[in-house]
Amino acid sequence: MTSYFKRLREVVSERGPLCVGIDPHPSLLQAWGLPVSAQGAEKCARHLVNVLGQKVSAFKPQSAFFERYGAAGVAGLERVIADIRDTGALSILDVKRGDIGSTMEAYADAYLGDSPLGVDAITVSPYLGFGSLTPAFERAVANERGVYVLARTSNPEGAEVQLAFNSEGSVVQNIIDAATELNRETRVKAVGLVVGGTHQTLGCDLSDFNGSILVPGIGFQGGRMEDLPKLFGDAVTQVLAVVGRGVIQAGPDAQALRAKVEKLLA
Amino acid sequence: MTSYFKRLREVVSERGPLCVGIDPHPSLLQAWGLPVSAQGAEKCARHLVNVLGQKVSAFKPQSAFFERYGAAGVAGLERVIADIRDTGALSILDVKRGDIGSTMEAYADAYLGDSPLGVDAITVSPYLGFGSLTPAFERAVANERGVYVLARTSNPEGAEVQLAFNSEGSVVQNIIDAATELNRETRVKAVGLVVGGTHQTLGCDLSDFNGSILVPGIGFQGGRMEDLPKLFGDAVTQVLAVVGRGVIQAGPDAQALRAKVEKLLA
Repeated sequence: MTSYFKRLREVVSERGPLCVGIDPHPSLLQAWGLPVSAQGAEKCARHLVNVLGQKVSAFKPQSAFFERYGAAGVAGLERVIADIRDTGALSILDVKRGDIGSTMEAYADAYLGDSPLGVDAITVSPYLGFGSLTPAFERAVANERGVYVLARTSNPEGAEVQLAFNSEGSVVQNIIDAATELNRETRVKAVGLVVGGTHQTLGCDLSDFNGSILVPGIGFQGGRMEDLPKLFGDAVTQVLAVVGRGVIQAGPDAQALRAKVEKLLA
Repeated sequence: MTSYFKRLREVVSERGPLCVGIDPHPSLLQAWGLPVSAQGAEKCARHLVNVLGQKVSAFKPQSAFFERYGAAGVAGLERVIADIRDTGALSILDVKRGDIGSTMEAYADAYLGDSPLGVDAITVSPYLGFGSLTPAFERAVANERGVYVLARTSNPEGAEVQLAFNSEGSVVQNIIDAATELNRETRVKAVGLVVGGTHQTLGCDLSDFNGSILVPGIGFQGGRMEDLPKLFGDAVTQVLAVVGRGVIQAGPDAQALRAKVEKLLA
């Protein structure tokens, strides 16, 4: 195996910096003529992976759209993850987990190990402090996985927490700096950041950050691929752009899905 | 049906303000002579519900300890939730979910509806801003469920985010005030708060808060039942204290578990 960051860099250098968000929400399932059920969500997701798995660097399934159906939905998600593994694309499971101590360890066991829901990387939420996520960071380093910490999210309501200040600076800058330092210490750059692509200005400094930057909010939420260089400056080379609905709405036709992805990568 | 807040008040007036945390972590399963597996976690949890379900006001299963085993673990959690429903105690699922838009709606569908994982209340995390949780609040009001927003958590690392300041005041105080206002508007007090019982002082003002306060951190993490009146002042009447390991470690013997709960309620 190789560290998550290296594997990501390799696949991105071949396929380009695009991650397809797998968000099988009810209205989408209906538009595709699928039932609003665990089976429908699984079918939609596996179709996307089957059609696009050789073209994109990563998929980001959104756990909520599978949890919605309880254990049956989660069983479908396990099969989606297994399918992604077979394509050579990376799996980034969007779970936004965040807890403390042995509970955070249990989440690391769930998603960053050889478990049924084990993936290449997950998203985590730092409301309980960056340090509370340590069990996930340690597991990611040990198992060559990645952890994307929510930093500056794409939605307007995020600012009240993320741009608040403590004695060290803003909450988001604290997170960026702590992630940078941890990546420097561990050298494998297991810690990435989630930074929305919808903002006019980010309100934080990513110029020293040394890991992967996952950028949702492109397309449906108003962010544009062509604006990313201006928004991220030199750090744009670390950006993995997520497009969810913007891709999925082109489906289920396989050719239309592939054409959409090619257009985004152009 | 009756609103979550009313149902909680009724059961607490009969049984007292104790919620048993269901945290079947691996070391506990081993101590109980159970396998570290989905079956082991389910067996541990259902034993607790079976033995204590007539005595306590609520159970708080920790989702991470079931997700750890993938869909098989989540299937066990569904049966634990069904068992809790049969006892007359309330179910508060500790999932700390937090997302935006249609994703937050999907979490509300998963946990606050007539779904396999539907419970009386869940915990949610406000790193994306209090307003991002609106889909959960709306569902809770409509379906007579509760939503506990993480406010001031029990761990030391939480302060860097929760006690940070924006132009309106501290992050935690913003959350308390927004929850208070929402409960006033909707009248059903669907929004509760999570406030750790481990602190010397809370660093926030709960005196106007009008909903339920879920207080973890009692026992294993160092908080003490007898210190809650001093810590919470008049708001102590709204406190639902969570004891997890402090109870579970008395098991699996049924009589010892019941004796432990009686002692805590005394």
